Amino acid sequence: MTFTDIARRTYDHNFRLDPIVRSLLDTDFYKLLMLQMIRHVHPDVATTFSLINRTTSVRLADVIDEAELRAQLDHARTVRFTKKELIWLAGNSFYGRQQMFGPDFLAWLADFRLPEYELHRRDGQYELHFAGPWTHTTMWEIPALAIINELRSRAALRDKGKFALDVTFARAKAKLWNKVERLRALPDLVLSDFGTRRRHGFLWQRWCVEALKEGLGDRFIGTSNVLLAMDADLEAIGTNAHELPMVAAALSRNDAELAAAPYRVLEEWRQHYNGNLLIALPDAFGTAAFLRNAPDWLAGWTGFRPDSAPPIPAGEQIIAWWQAHGVDPRQRLLIFSDGMDVDSIERTYHHFHGRVRLSFGWGTNLTNDFRDCAPDGDSALEPISLVCKVTSANGHPAVKLSDNPAKATGDPAEIARYLRVFGREGLAPAPVTV
Amino acid sequence: MTFTDIARRTYDHNFRLDPIVRSLLDTDFYKLLMLQMIRHVHPDVATTFSLINRTTSVRLADVIDEAELRAQLDHARTVRFTKKELIWLAGNSFYGRQQMFGPDFLAWLADFRLPEYELHRRDGQYELHFAGPWTHTTMWEIPALAIINELRSRAALRDKGKFALDVTFARAKAKLWNKVERLRALPDLVLSDFGTRRRHGFLWQRWCVEALKEGLGDRFIGTSNVLLAMDADLEAIGTNAHELPMVAAALSRNDAELAAAPYRVLEEWRQHYNGNLLIALPDAFGTAAFLRNAPDWLAGWTGFRPDSAPPIPAGEQIIAWWQAHGVDPRQRLLIFSDGMDVDSIERTYHHFHGRVRLSFGWGTNLTNDFRDCAPDGDSALEPISLVCKVTSANGHPAVKLSDNPAKATGDPAEIARYLRVFGREGLAPAPVTV
Repeated sequence: MTFTDIARRTYDHNFRLDPIVRSLLDTDFYKLLMLQMIRHVHPDVATTFSLINRTTSVRLADVIDEAELRAQLDHARTVRFTKKELIWLAGNSFYGRQQMFGPDFLAWLADFRLPEYELHRRDGQYELHFAGPWTHTTMWEIPALAIINELRSRAALRDKGKFALDVTFARAKAKLWNKVERLRALPDLVLSDFGTRRRHGFLWQRWCVEALKEGLGDRFIGTSNVLLAMDADLEAIGTNAHELPMVAAALSRNDAELAAAPYRVLEEWRQHYNGNLLIALPDAFGTAAFLRNAPDWLAGWTGFRPDSAPPIPAGEQIIAWWQAHGVDPRQRLLIFSDGMDVDSIERTYHHFHGRVRLSFGWGTNLTNDFRDCAPDGDSALEPISLVCKVTSANGHPAVKLSDNPAKATGDPAEIARYLRVFGREGLAPAPVTV
Repeated sequence: MTFTDIARRTYDHNFRLDPIVRSLLDTDFYKLLMLQMIRHVHPDVATTFSLINRTTSVRLADVIDEAELRAQLDHARTVRFTKKELIWLAGNSFYGRQQMFGPDFLAWLADFRLPEYELHRRDGQYELHFAGPWTHTTMWEIPALAIINELRSRAALRDKGKFALDVTFARAKAKLWNKVERLRALPDLVLSDFGTRRRHGFLWQRWCVEALKEGLGDRFIGTSNVLLAMDADLEAIGTNAHELPMVAAALSRNDAELAAAPYRVLEEWRQHYNGNLLIALPDAFGTAAFLRNAPDWLAGWTGFRPDSAPPIPAGEQIIAWWQAHGVDPRQRLLIFSDGMDVDSIERTYHHFHGRVRLSFGWGTNLTNDFRDCAPDGDSALEPISLVCKVTSANGHPAVKLSDNPAKATGDPAEIARYLRVFGREGLAPAPVTV
């Protein structure tokens, strides 16, 4: 007897859409933490988030069908938080703390849906904007990126035969497992998955997360993806992102307020969260400037997440700052998350091991490394540098400088003003690969 | 809605046996060609075939459960040629020839079943013998080997988790495909699958064959496995094996008949088959002796399959013999099939390319290369050197010398007599890895 599930096959005959976003928890944890604060402190701020493809050589509008993209974006707008998800958010502890999310916030989430989007094609690229209340537009960042990246993967694999697909995924699995075996050689490794936004696809990210859980045990501390954290009984990892200082800076009424904006944001954050959540991003407008003017109380925070400078100099710079403030770096945490892969994790681990608490957020090179995996060796699966950034707040342009000018975003005149206010110290261009 | 095939899951709950041999066509093609001749010329010869594990360090009886082994052997004895299979044998052309198998042979096959077996445990190994008419015992060789090898694979994988299994097969697929890509660099390659007897398992052999078909196109000329040839619309490949000269030698009444036995067998073969089937095995009792005394008419045959000497000297020896007989080697065929892998295929190809027609039979290292594939790196999946040889004919011990004394089989006194009759010229011990 041959077993065939005829009902399933018949359903497949009429297959319409394989939704990419099936849950509003399929996002990064820091989005929810930031959202709770935004809703409390800045409920009336309006922002625009925009898609920015830094890999201009990949013409996304030539690769991804517009109707498919609209169908996926439209489908994401129909998704709601389910009861099970809200109960889990209410009942689970995060970073050891019960009731991280307040009842009124959860009640508000129950009615949440993603707001409208604006989509145009221009010069082979998509212009994709989300304008409206910050409390809603912020939630588009991760699903929008996940949708575009997965549609690109699907397009790259559309014409492959069953066999080529089988070899492609077999190689990708073998490749990831070889990385896992190298990482096992680092006994005090602390690693988490930060790969949602740039993933090859949801199912592949799930496989990667399960691989790390199986292969690294306790050294894999969790995932930034809230849905996967819930489903795989892992910790949800993440704190805050550049959008907080960027919006604060954009809303500043003068240069003095602009210079103080990065610290004002951290004070707001401290009022909302504490403990392990006290992690600061130092690089929104340049790490050197940030540290030079940082208030002393910041030395009491858990740590920093350098996100755009090369890891070793960035870490040394911060350690020197801690030492200048009389703090033992071994009591502090550095989280590295900018384009890490096994080589740079190993180097950074060995460089800092024993001198500071270390943690790695592994993103694109974890969940989207299909380089040299397709049997015909095409490059359509290579990851691209795609971001979705806040571009304005209450009508004022938003800017990010970062430590790497190649990652700067925003209006050129505003960038010039920010450079004047924060200075250029320590800014060094480097190629942006992912 | 979650799709689950409840009927299938329920069947699986009561799962009893996953049969390894499900078709009598799941054997090597040369078995059928030899069988037709044996039935015609030697219907009354009785033989014993016996399992020989040359990798004595692997204690098979400690690895494979005896009840499981008996269940698989018993199941194989229930299998019959199906109507579809007999119709395909009758209707398909082999080596370009219609009706390779006569109607009376096919009618006889319809009633065929594998004969009884005798199984004992001794010193951590299995003694497994098949005694009876040559027309029946010969057919046990391949299924017996396939059963033992697959039961060993299953035992090695029994305690692995789902994830370890996934990584193991992903790595094996990636490994094989890397080999395929190297072989693609050989434009005039002629390759076939000879890996049934030593395969990891049936499903894995099928994947390997499909991989070669997909990856090598016309350079993959077919498989020795008749079932896979039928199912994948490939050529069935193979001619004859050592058991023919071994039985002829065992039945010789004196040393003169023994010395002539290898050539008598080839005359019988020529009467039955011709064309591409005129391939001689030169090494049953040493290639040097074989060629020294070979009749001139053998130079008219299609070619040789050297099967136990290192490929390059073995080929050179045969080419010199052809040239001494005034034959252009470019009109002749050499088939290499002894423990080949990509390295030795490449070396042999480049050495002989343009000087002789070349073909490779790729066996164990095609269908059972799981070295370094299991996540915990154990060696239980490494292939072993297991054979099933004719050990007696009509009560007389059967002997194989081969070019490599490490591959010799048979009664020591008889081996000494054979060495006296055929000489030791050119015999050189070499490690037997697969």
